[in-house]
Amino acid sequence: MSLLTIDEYLRQPVAERLPYYQREGRLYHVMMSQQFPRPLMEEIFGVANTLKAMSHDYEGLEFLSRLLRHKRAMLYFTQPSTRTFLSFLTACQLVGITTGEVQDPALSSEYKGESQEDAIRVFSSYFDLVIMRDPKPGFCEYIAYRQDRTGFSVPILNGGSGKDQHPTQALLDLYTMHRSFQRMGGISGKRYAFVGDLQRGRAVRSVMYLLANYEDLDFYAVAPKGFQISPDLQLHLEERGVRLHFTDQLNEVLPEVDCIYMTRVQDEYDLSGESGKIDLANFSLTEENVNLLPEHAIILHPLPRRQEISSGIDANPRAMYWSQLRNGVYIRAALLLYIFGKNEQLPIIQEKSNP
Amino acid sequence: MSLLTIDEYLRQPVAERLPYYQREGRLYHVMMSQQFPRPLMEEIFGVANTLKAMSHDYEGLEFLSRLLRHKRAMLYFTQPSTRTFLSFLTACQLVGITTGEVQDPALSSEYKGESQEDAIRVFSSYFDLVIMRDPKPGFCEYIAYRQDRTGFSVPILNGGSGKDQHPTQALLDLYTMHRSFQRMGGISGKRYAFVGDLQRGRAVRSVMYLLANYEDLDFYAVAPKGFQISPDLQLHLEERGVRLHFTDQLNEVLPEVDCIYMTRVQDEYDLSGESGKIDLANFSLTEENVNLLPEHAIILHPLPRRQEISSGIDANPRAMYWSQLRNGVYIRAALLLYIFGKNEQLPIIQEKSNP
Amino acid sequence: MSLLTIDEYLRQPVAERLPYYQREGRLYHVMMSQQFPRPLMEEIFGVANTLKAMSHDYEGLEFLSRLLRHKRAMLYFTQPSTRTFLSFLTACQLVGITTGEVQDPALSSEYKGESQEDAIRVFSSYFDLVIMRDPKPGFCEYIAYRQDRTGFSVPILNGGSGKDQHPTQALLDLYTMHRSFQRMGGISGKRYAFVGDLQRGRAVRSVMYLLANYEDLDFYAVAPKGFQISPDLQLHLEERGVRLHFTDQLNEVLPEVDCIYMTRVQDEYDLSGESGKIDLANFSLTEENVNLLPEHAIILHPLPRRQEISSGIDANPRAMYWSQLRNGVYIRAALLLYIFGKNEQLPIIQEKSNP
Repeated sequence: MSLLTIDEYLRQPVAERLPYYQREGRLYHVMMSQQFPRPLMEEIFGVANTLKAMSHDYEGLEFLSRLLRHKRAMLYFTQPSTRTFLSFLTACQLVGITTGEVQDPALSSEYKGESQEDAIRVFSSYFDLVIMRDPKPGFCEYIAYRQDRTGFSVPILNGGSGKDQHPTQALLDLYTMHRSFQRMGGISGKRYAFVGDLQRGRAVRSVMYLLANYEDLDFYAVAPKGFQISPDLQLHLEERGVRLHFTDQLNEVLPEVDCIYMTRVQDEYDLSGESGKIDLANFSLTEENVNLLPEHAIILHPLPRRQEISSGIDANPRAMYWSQLRNGVYIRAALLLYIFGKNEQLPIIQEKSNP
Repeated sequence: MSLLTIDEYLRQPVAERLPYYQREGRLYHVMMSQQFPRPLMEEIFGVANTLKAMSHDYEGLEFLSRLLRHKRAMLYFTQPSTRTFLSFLTACQLVGITTGEVQDPALSSEYKGESQEDAIRVFSSYFDLVIMRDPKPGFCEYIAYRQDRTGFSVPILNGGSGKDQHPTQALLDLYTMHRSFQRMGGISGKRYAFVGDLQRGRAVRSVMYLLANYEDLDFYAVAPKGFQISPDLQLHLEERGVRLHFTDQLNEVLPEVDCIYMTRVQDEYDLSGESGKIDLANFSLTEENVNLLPEHAIILHPLPRRQEISSGIDANPRAMYWSQLRNGVYIRAALLLYIFGKNEQLPIIQEKSNP
Repeated sequence: MSLLTIDEYLRQPVAERLPYYQREGRLYHVMMSQQFPRPLMEEIFGVANTLKAMSHDYEGLEFLSRLLRHKRAMLYFTQPSTRTFLSFLTACQLVGITTGEVQDPALSSEYKGESQEDAIRVFSSYFDLVIMRDPKPGFCEYIAYRQDRTGFSVPILNGGSGKDQHPTQALLDLYTMHRSFQRMGGISGKRYAFVGDLQRGRAVRSVMYLLANYEDLDFYAVAPKGFQISPDLQLHLEERGVRLHFTDQLNEVLPEVDCIYMTRVQDEYDLSGESGKIDLANFSLTEENVNLLPEHAIILHPLPRRQEISSGIDANPRAMYWSQLRNGVYIRAALLLYIFGKNEQLPIIQEKSNP
């Protein structure tokens, strides 16, 4: 059987690619948000809750660190990211996975003319899992496809692929909402504001996709002209019944919402400095306007932040972005347990209310 | 409560900053030599002795590796240092602490416009301890101060801050003297020579500060013109009753001392090549002049060395600098146990004589 | 006793240097292929077989990970190599060795004027083993010699020294042949083709040296003009009774051999682009000519590959190079057990037939 090229492969509709990432009806490669229907998401949230509860003492941590101590993961980050890298590292260490890493592609043997596909096959010879971040959209998917046809495949986990997908970020965002709203009727029926660069922000795109799995939602898309959500995403949200409201008036939206998701302007994707013309003050939370939010509302941010959230807000009880960061560790560790079928070995622990 | 700026914070006298680094009367952040009065130092030396004695067999190492296996440390070195980095890494591994690291600041997500304070808050979300080295004087202290006001703080350990402080280096120097002199009446009452760049050498400054906690001391400061100890340090030493002798005649001093502390010229701090004019031969130990030292004298050096100690001296029984290097691992591990309150779980082992 | 310079040391014949690398009749430093006579090689192959068999389940992996958990290894790679680095890392982790690493020499404190010998002495103060790769031929041997004279020596393992030696690569090549031929009468009596840059390929040189320990061998040296094996190697092989055949006609050789060892052109050693003139097509395996090989023949390659083996061949049952890669982990781990005298604590497991 001859192999597809990367272009041929990616030309297939997502719905046709999705089954490639399953094994025996179970998640195998983690590639995109679309792989997480609501029941699977909530199962993983439950595992994350247990991990979080068990992480408070020596005995719990000791138990967790035995679950996957026979597994080894490669962290292959050709696009550097300290935050995501350390989050995955921490998640691996929490459940006992031993790690190796390549962060600087210049260190790799690619200078000897090896293809990147061979490099990844090397990793899958040494490790039981490859967690990768690569700037090329769809590359991670293609590697998973190729590797599966060699008879020697290991799970591949997408830690961020260009402007494309960053599925674990979206999961941790939803998990933070899930925890925050669990005593307020859950994620459904709430009003969400998304603020900033809604066109190019990978995280905000993914979180909207995943949220659309829930019901009875209002989305306030607060963006400068030219940075609003793209037509394909708008279409998808409308098909799922989300009520969409477009505006560039942040302060009018603040009193209306249960959750505000702030983002930074992704100026690294500028073609000709277009984001320099934005008046960022109009898309920022400050110690003044933050109190326009209802008291129960939560503030999220995928981090790193710039000026769009003043550091004076960190102590505001609505600020959830540091919890969100820590939640990322539990979600990623939960996913690792799920991939290796170890989630069922955990004790069942009741959810706590502190997000 | 509004936060001080870094300048405001550092303008406070040391005596006012010191209490910030304690919790419940116990060492929490490790920032500077001034935090180590003699009883605390000697308590830590005792822990280090036990660690050293237990490191010789599988059972001892196995026991130690369980003490802090539920803890994780971030090694954040924006100023590279293989030696100090590996010493801390070894110390962490000895007592079972799992580690993550950022050594190359260019790899960090700071290019996305994140502040270094946010970066460190990220680390403290993922880790139980941050060991950092940063070239900016006082930055490490300021981070500890800021972080403590967030309600989510972890201990921070200063692994060297510019020309400023390097407290664990000073501790390991003292520990080596402590072990070497334990059958000769201890550190007090001895004569010490300090040779080389006494003005800019961070290590030698700190070790003099700590030594001044002991009594009845003679210090011979052997330095080229323009590289003698600074007036503030001189004042401090005199106030503590140290008898200071200034000279640039090394060979005259050698027969007089119990300990000689050699240093390299810190030419990385030269403004206009001033250290190029020093005749280094006058401030070096060679296979000839080394025998002017009394037989019982010890030779220390914080390493790395250049020409100031000929490699032919390594086999001389007075040479203690390689032992000093290994002592650094035990002192750092002892400090880690102390910070996490695990020092009391160690068996009590009698000190041995071999330094 | 005065020390030899590196030139004086390396001027001694290999036969005189070999005893320096033993302790009490046992392998201590691993420096070169010449240290592995056939009985020692086969003892290590047996250990590797056991490791391989025990690596399939949690219990086996758990048992192995306890064998050397009291040992720590430094991976010191001043010449970068992702593949070899990760293979050693994996081997260390398999048998429980904790690791530290320096991969980027620019990060080291050498900028402070420290000699590389002092740097390695630092490593041997912190670690129980140094695994090093360095571009300078013989440097690794010289370091072992120097260090042994300090009274504080740890085993040093050569992970590749310039064009010179790469002993663990040669061992894993032989191990792959050993496994492949174990049901066909073993390595002796077989016909081997070596294809590509036979003059400068370190791996291919070493594997020919080691193979010459066996009997009744035919070697087909298939290389472009100017890239044939060097006269010293030719002499050695003839002295050992190997029947040598020189040619540049690959397709004529293919039907004749039991094993074909492909190599890439080492153009990083070109003085003036000489390898640019080679018609690489004449020294490549393709989906067409591969079937000229006998069905039982095996294809090896030290990797990384370029065009000399088409990726379409990866699924061919003769292709052994990915198994060869994994065998490297078991051989290296076996060597680590052997160095620390732990090989005898393994259960004896019958060899399996799958290479």
